[in-house]
Amino acid sequence: MKIINLDHISANPLLPEVRQAMIEAINTDFGNPSSQHRLGELAAEAIENARRSVARLVNAKAEREIVFTSGGTESVNHAIKGVAWANGDKGNHIITSNIEHNAVIRSLKRLAGQNYRMTSVSVDRNGRVDPAEVEKAITDQTILISIMHSNNETGTIQPVEEIAAIARRHRILFHCDAVDSVGVVPVDVQSLGVDLLSFASNPFYGPTGVGGLYIRRGVRIWPLLDGGIQEHNKRAGTENLIGIIGMGTAAQLARKDLERRMAHTRRLRDLFLAELPKYVDEYIINTNLHHCLPHMVSVSIKYIEGESVVLMLDDENFAVSTRSACATGSLRASHVLLSLGLEHADAQGTLVIAFGVDNAEEEVTAFLKALGKVVSTLRDISPLYKKMAGRNSA
Amino acid sequence: MKIINLDHISANPLLPEVRQAMIEAINTDFGNPSSQHRLGELAAEAIENARRSVARLVNAKAEREIVFTSGGTESVNHAIKGVAWANGDKGNHIITSNIEHNAVIRSLKRLAGQNYRMTSVSVDRNGRVDPAEVEKAITDQTILISIMHSNNETGTIQPVEEIAAIARRHRILFHCDAVDSVGVVPVDVQSLGVDLLSFASNPFYGPTGVGGLYIRRGVRIWPLLDGGIQEHNKRAGTENLIGIIGMGTAAQLARKDLERRMAHTRRLRDLFLAELPKYVDEYIINTNLHHCLPHMVSVSIKYIEGESVVLMLDDENFAVSTRSACATGSLRASHVLLSLGLEHADAQGTLVIAFGVDNAEEEVTAFLKALGKVVSTLRDISPLYKKMAGRNSA
Repeated sequence: MKIINLDHISANPLLPEVRQAMIEAINTDFGNPSSQHRLGELAAEAIENARRSVARLVNAKAEREIVFTSGGTESVNHAIKGVAWANGDKGNHIITSNIEHNAVIRSLKRLAGQNYRMTSVSVDRNGRVDPAEVEKAITDQTILISIMHSNNETGTIQPVEEIAAIARRHRILFHCDAVDSVGVVPVDVQSLGVDLLSFASNPFYGPTGVGGLYIRRGVRIWPLLDGGIQEHNKRAGTENLIGIIGMGTAAQLARKDLERRMAHTRRLRDLFLAELPKYVDEYIINTNLHHCLPHMVSVSIKYIEGESVVLMLDDENFAVSTRSACATGSLRASHVLLSLGLEHADAQGTLVIAFGVDNAEEEVTAFLKALGKVVSTLRDISPLYKKMAGRNSA
Repeated sequence: MKIINLDHISANPLLPEVRQAMIEAINTDFGNPSSQHRLGELAAEAIENARRSVARLVNAKAEREIVFTSGGTESVNHAIKGVAWANGDKGNHIITSNIEHNAVIRSLKRLAGQNYRMTSVSVDRNGRVDPAEVEKAITDQTILISIMHSNNETGTIQPVEEIAAIARRHRILFHCDAVDSVGVVPVDVQSLGVDLLSFASNPFYGPTGVGGLYIRRGVRIWPLLDGGIQEHNKRAGTENLIGIIGMGTAAQLARKDLERRMAHTRRLRDLFLAELPKYVDEYIINTNLHHCLPHMVSVSIKYIEGESVVLMLDDENFAVSTRSACATGSLRASHVLLSLGLEHADAQGTLVIAFGVDNAEEEVTAFLKALGKVVSTLRDISPLYKKMAGRNSA
């Protein structure tokens, strides 16, 4: 039985053209891109072609501003720790928000053990950072501001352009974690005005384990990986050639196809939202629908546990998630949802539904039916629901 | 025209079984190994299978002592920086050798900017570290000793077991950079007695951009990549699934095939060494032939430039290198060869020849002929050679 993937924030399938490019790479005898003979030249050329496609996707001025990494997490670690270490003589204060990905939060926590200080600004009930709050947090020790582009649990998009402008006015470096946005919505490093931008290949249907970091020319940063002189001396280590070739192909396709993909997944998401009241009542939409990724929505269904919903939907062959895959295994309620002001119990009943290019309208309808069934089964056995239902009908 | 690869230290071709496994992975719809539904379970299972194969290859006691990384460079950076940061309260002194890979040297340089201190022991003319020198360098501040298993430019193997025993006696953590040894010669973390061991997949014919770090249970270390809880909380980031599957397959094959591969490449190397005097005179063998990898040899050919030899051999369809690919682009003479006591001019005339399972005896003979031709062409136009030849015949 085919599993219908509605968890396109955790894992996207590879596009057929990406598979093809990677299989061709596997079947080509590439050498080491840094070696001195022709075997190596072919490999170096393949990497530079991929870099060009990625640079165009984010509108970098120069291709060498793109560093290939092992994924979004490495990009974020590199950006935050690399800037902190390289600019420790200027100051030790970093500003971030309460709803960042764990890669940002834990990189900053790590730096806190090395005498760096953090200010984390909160978000409003609509899930957005107030740029004025960021500006207020600036001190003469501030060396970096790191705010995400879109949130990985709600899809809400942040006012990055305004915050970047503030950072620039104060001559502070600005990093944007755009892992869930690049290749999904238009992201342009020039118009955003960011100094560093982290992204990964899988959100735009490339392979996992490969990503990129945009580093604007002139930014003072240390490498995270020291060693050889690969990636213009910014990231040592023999390149993941096959992954990079896959990412390059995916970037090329994303740039060409972005509008069509956005329209397709937005239609599915809007269908879901329009039809949802017919199948489930008493839920909260956590996504800010005025500023969000087109393909995803976070919904907290009252009186039930999201984990149970996920498992029961799995039995019905639908893959959804309760939160980002990176946080799976942690039992605590999502820091993102609590930051929105959600009650603990409601946060526990949250589903993240993320549509992809491989989904069709009839899958949305089938999913809604399954979801309605699962929710009423779970509520039938929920003491809390009975109590609340009793109160409502009283 | 087929290029004959005699540069198996820079880049190895993928074995057919590895290609096959990777192509199958590309054609399977895997999910995110950390996600909560079945799509993810398949991926998690594939990663754990690969981890088992890798754990067996290095004889780790527990599979969870293996962390998958983006390659040898990340493994080395993780081991050295991670141990230094996590044990900064115990001391700030690290011991290493003069002939380490740049990943080690530059990781240590980076730490030197964070108030760590280094002692680098020299090697003897045979290219080996004297364990007694390491012991002499120990202070009450020493928290880590990092010595490589085999050198990437000469293939000379270090007395790792003796040094690890000294480290253990002094209760100091010991890291071994075994990137060019694991899967090439037997490497057993138990009998070596190491606490941390870095390695990569490509030296045993797996994909580039994927590697591993053995961390003995109980070792205090920080992650290099902070974020999600992947890899038992030791290395955040969505895994390079296709690369890891390739590495697992390559590890399985390496374990089974090690003796045969060693015998095959040793035969080619020995044939090369036996026949070399018929084609070239006045050269120096830099490899310690009593303690070395079976498949490679470093030879300095007097009165010529290695770079020119490489380029001319490239025209003849032979791929060799002058040094490690990671150092290409740097114009300085190899620190490894200078540490051996080689003259600057002789170091410049060095070729590293590394045979692989895909080479045949007739290729060695063809290569020797081409090498002889190239060397005499270059010497004919070398003023230094004329002068020396004149002196010798005078």
